[in-house]
Amino acid sequence: MIPSDQQQSAPHEGLRERRRRRTRADLHATTLRLARDLGFARVTVDMICKEVGVSPRTFFNYFPSKEAALFALPGSLPPALADRFAGGQGQDTDAVLRDLGDVLADHLREGVPGPQELEDTLRIAEGVPSVLATFLAQCEAVERDLAGTIARRTGTPPDGEAAELLAGIAMATLRSGLKRWSQARDHRDGPAECVRDSFTALRALLGPAAVR
Amino acid sequence: MIPSDQQQSAPHEGLRERRRRRTRADLHATTLRLARDLGFARVTVDMICKEVGVSPRTFFNYFPSKEAALFALPGSLPPALADRFAGGQGQDTDAVLRDLGDVLADHLREGVPGPQELEDTLRIAEGVPSVLATFLAQCEAVERDLAGTIARRTGTPPDGEAAELLAGIAMATLRSGLKRWSQARDHRDGPAECVRDSFTALRALLGPAAVR
Repeated sequence: MIPSDQQQSAPHEGLRERRRRRTRADLHATTLRLARDLGFARVTVDMICKEVGVSPRTFFNYFPSKEAALFALPGSLPPALADRFAGGQGQDTDAVLRDLGDVLADHLREGVPGPQELEDTLRIAEGVPSVLATFLAQCEAVERDLAGTIARRTGTPPDGEAAELLAGIAMATLRSGLKRWSQARDHRDGPAECVRDSFTALRALLGPAAVR
Repeated sequence: MIPSDQQQSAPHEGLRERRRRRTRADLHATTLRLARDLGFARVTVDMICKEVGVSPRTFFNYFPSKEAALFALPGSLPPALADRFAGGQGQDTDAVLRDLGDVLADHLREGVPGPQELEDTLRIAEGVPSVLATFLAQCEAVERDLAGTIARRTGTPPDGEAAELLAGIAMATLRSGLKRWSQARDHRDGPAECVRDSFTALRALLGPAAVR
């Protein structure tokens, strides 16, 4: 069942959501630590579960594999955020990009690996084909889901080129924002703020004011 | 020395360019065939060179590694095309995207692997981390070079967000066009035409006419 916005913001849902987020973060941090200590090939799901104190069944509620747990980037928009975006006002490109920037920034507040953590993960990924393949597949799935949600908002076909292009533009903007965040010296702004800034820059670039 | 448009279109340059293109295609096709027959790990640069009848020195003029030869996707814009784009008229976003679509389509006429060839390459890549890593690094390098060329055209900083976002948008549009081409049943249009169509769709989406 898809939770509605109302259920999502009820007090006990807030608690459950926080607990979910913490378990997910624990599973990821433990996978990364074990991979650093033992080498990723020797890490097993059972090992991760024992350290965190959850059952394998619980593990697989969060991640489909140890590869996915190693990356733990924010995945597709959760149903409540996707619904909020799909039901938003305005089907023109600027309104769609404005609201996409908002929901993606909110989504990132759920937690993004820190720069050092991301660097460690990428170093491990370089030597393990399954991790790199999982990462690529994750990125593709997120972009495909996003195209479907954009199609719902704009009333266009889910496999249509308009939704696909907008999803591609959004992912490029997201990457640009995260890159700027990870390269910033002070990290005063969080990833969500940097991504929001990139969407603002994008809309300025595409709007009528873009003519120099 | 960067060859100018004039040199590029001189008769003997045309011949040299055609020969270069054929050698590159031979090196790639041979790498792919050997990888299919022997497994990628057992293929060596010497083996590829012996089959094609060139020296390793020549091989490394075309590809930095056997991994790169396996993919052989069109790389960064050659200097003549980059110069043509950078010197084009109009710095507004629409003019930049229009001309980007043109040069990228022209670039693709140089040759793109066929759908079956691409599928074989991806199947090999899934099992070999170095191939996947090379592919990702290639995509990043192409996008970074493109941002630099866009910055030259628009007179903005090469590491600025405007050039980076436009490069990201162009790469997303390129991917969308190539995907549509590889999924088309009849393959009546070539990859260059499909990419050009995607840029037309992009500009319609971003232009004032995008409001439904």
